[in-house]
Amino acid sequence: MDISKTDSGVCVDGFTAGGAKEGRYGVAIIAGDKPCRAAAVFTTNTMKAAPILLSMEKVAGGELQAVIANSGNANACVAAGMDDAKKMCEIAAKMLSLSPDKVAVASTGIIGRKMDIGAIEKVADKVSKDLTDKPVGSLRAAKAIMTTDTREKSLSFKYKGIEAGGICKGAGMISPQMATMLCFITTDADVDPKTLQECLRNAVGDSFNMLVIDDCMSTNDMVLLLSSGKVKCAKEDFQTLLNHLTKELAKLLALDGEGATKYIEVEVRGAKDRETARKAAKAIISSSLVKTAVHGENPNWGRIAAAMGSVIKYDFEKIDLFFESGSEKAAVVVKGVMKELEPARKILKNKELRITVDLNSGKESAVGYGCDLTCEYIKINAEYN
Amino acid sequence: MDISKTDSGVCVDGFTAGGAKEGRYGVAIIAGDKPCRAAAVFTTNTMKAAPILLSMEKVAGGELQAVIANSGNANACVAAGMDDAKKMCEIAAKMLSLSPDKVAVASTGIIGRKMDIGAIEKVADKVSKDLTDKPVGSLRAAKAIMTTDTREKSLSFKYKGIEAGGICKGAGMISPQMATMLCFITTDADVDPKTLQECLRNAVGDSFNMLVIDDCMSTNDMVLLLSSGKVKCAKEDFQTLLNHLTKELAKLLALDGEGATKYIEVEVRGAKDRETARKAAKAIISSSLVKTAVHGENPNWGRIAAAMGSVIKYDFEKIDLFFESGSEKAAVVVKGVMKELEPARKILKNKELRITVDLNSGKESAVGYGCDLTCEYIKINAEYN
Repeated sequence: MDISKTDSGVCVDGFTAGGAKEGRYGVAIIAGDKPCRAAAVFTTNTMKAAPILLSMEKVAGGELQAVIANSGNANACVAAGMDDAKKMCEIAAKMLSLSPDKVAVASTGIIGRKMDIGAIEKVADKVSKDLTDKPVGSLRAAKAIMTTDTREKSLSFKYKGIEAGGICKGAGMISPQMATMLCFITTDADVDPKTLQECLRNAVGDSFNMLVIDDCMSTNDMVLLLSSGKVKCAKEDFQTLLNHLTKELAKLLALDGEGATKYIEVEVRGAKDRETARKAAKAIISSSLVKTAVHGENPNWGRIAAAMGSVIKYDFEKIDLFFESGSEKAAVVVKGVMKELEPARKILKNKELRITVDLNSGKESAVGYGCDLTCEYIKINAEYN
Repeated sequence: MDISKTDSGVCVDGFTAGGAKEGRYGVAIIAGDKPCRAAAVFTTNTMKAAPILLSMEKVAGGELQAVIANSGNANACVAAGMDDAKKMCEIAAKMLSLSPDKVAVASTGIIGRKMDIGAIEKVADKVSKDLTDKPVGSLRAAKAIMTTDTREKSLSFKYKGIEAGGICKGAGMISPQMATMLCFITTDADVDPKTLQECLRNAVGDSFNMLVIDDCMSTNDMVLLLSSGKVKCAKEDFQTLLNHLTKELAKLLALDGEGATKYIEVEVRGAKDRETARKAAKAIISSSLVKTAVHGENPNWGRIAAAMGSVIKYDFEKIDLFFESGSEKAAVVVKGVMKELEPARKILKNKELRITVDLNSGKESAVGYGCDLTCEYIKINAEYN
């Protein structure tokens, strides 16, 4: 594929961005030069935070021109939540001289605490004066929405003349039943609103929805896509670009999973249908026992077999199971028979791993993204306030 | 309730037991003086280990008189599995002078390795010569089936003249979608085989199936119940006794969860139906974020709200949420409003905790059992071979 990496991040043609952090609160703003087509997917948690409920309304309204997001407080499970979410939109709208209808809002951080709107307004004021169409704007925005993340996550790619860029955050409370974190994507691709939503849903299905850090579903997840519509393109090409971008962003999230020391990709192939492959890949990547085994550099494939068996029916005597890293590859099970484990043990010493299971029962496959489970995860989440 | 604790363990009237461990392998045998009525529930994992498949057949056959169980090897995902499971039954049958049809078998340990039948036979020989109807037999059997367990688990109770006792093992790979470990129960209660199975299924539903250590489903779980039928009783009384025994055994498993430093009981009440209460309680007890928060003695109730929201719809403004330990009790949320957290922080310093959520939307309730998530869990499972 002729997809090339660019430096823009979300600052693709037609967009500016910025971000800053002060004390507990970080604020990011991404703004279009003019109204944009918008698409979004939201957490399926029934206990949706106020900014999610408000942004759902705004996206349904059609056009958006900006999004304001804060870290430090999820604005979830608090009585004043909706008022505060609306205030955030108004603050950004005023600073950007837009109607509040055109501004989406997102929050991330601790649940159940009242927001300090004054503090957020102060940071937002600084950010709005510093918006830029240079790549640094995207990096600042990505940094501002970090919570337990250790690195900002900003990426962009070009394909057949169209560009798409995204920032995302999220290192814990990540489960694959929905859009699993905050992610803001911009593009100059000219596709109609219905196609925009359809392409986003497809892309999320194979990227963020195949990502598991701890299998905990957040109240605040959102993936928002804004399109300036400047560059004509074929739907397929946009889908290709968006798939690539979201998968690369999902990998960044997995790499930066809370406490993670190893990145794990799981491919299940040879499945009779796609849903079977997806279920199996997710079960493996979600298993605490698989994750701890990888952490211990232990090729305990029995846990992989057990994890798959908890969600799909398969014929053990047909399966092949490999551990891979870069160009190294070790078969640990071939047609249901265990092989020498030493080569796999060596491969497991690497930081980026791929577990491949071939069910040898069909042609469908799916890939899941995740990381190992470590003491650091426990420490982060025992202490997080 | 007039249920009293006894010392018998599985050595209730009509049964003998024993167990020993040598090197990698532990072997436990429980035997009836005469053929017993049998009931059982098995893991719903599709990748069932050979001893599970074999014991399913045997239980379906009606009467059983003994069970042999080993630790050190799960006898799962190996070509010779069924042959080896049959050999174990034959070994026990020969030593006890029974038909192999009358002997059930169970295994626990690492998946995917060939059993050393010679080693098992050697230990079994020792055990069969030492079977006793004294309580020490039950303790020995309970000890022999331990893997990562730190304590043997043996209990028995009397109620209205009937007695039931059980041993169980299991500290990891415990998830609530099935019978979640090895558990062998004996009783002198005279109930018909259909009722026996029905009572066991009911009891397991509210005890082992409400227990989560790490939400990983095993290939080898089994709860087996043998009845000597010596004492006449009403079905309701037997159910009461069995419910009590299985809940107390489930608590022992939770208390000894891999790496656990705290026991957690979660009650969800005020639900419109029982399934809602069960789902919510399980989601809370399964959440890595709730478990790590409890480990950190951190009353992060937002994670409890989010965990419930991932599986049920509820009205946050109606809920009450308490942390309790013994007679201490602290409300952290009352009708959706957060209270002072200091009292809850103090309660969380205790070793045995209860989280109660009242949905205030109905009359149904459910209780889940579990433990905190700690670095020790990671260490145990990173190193387990």
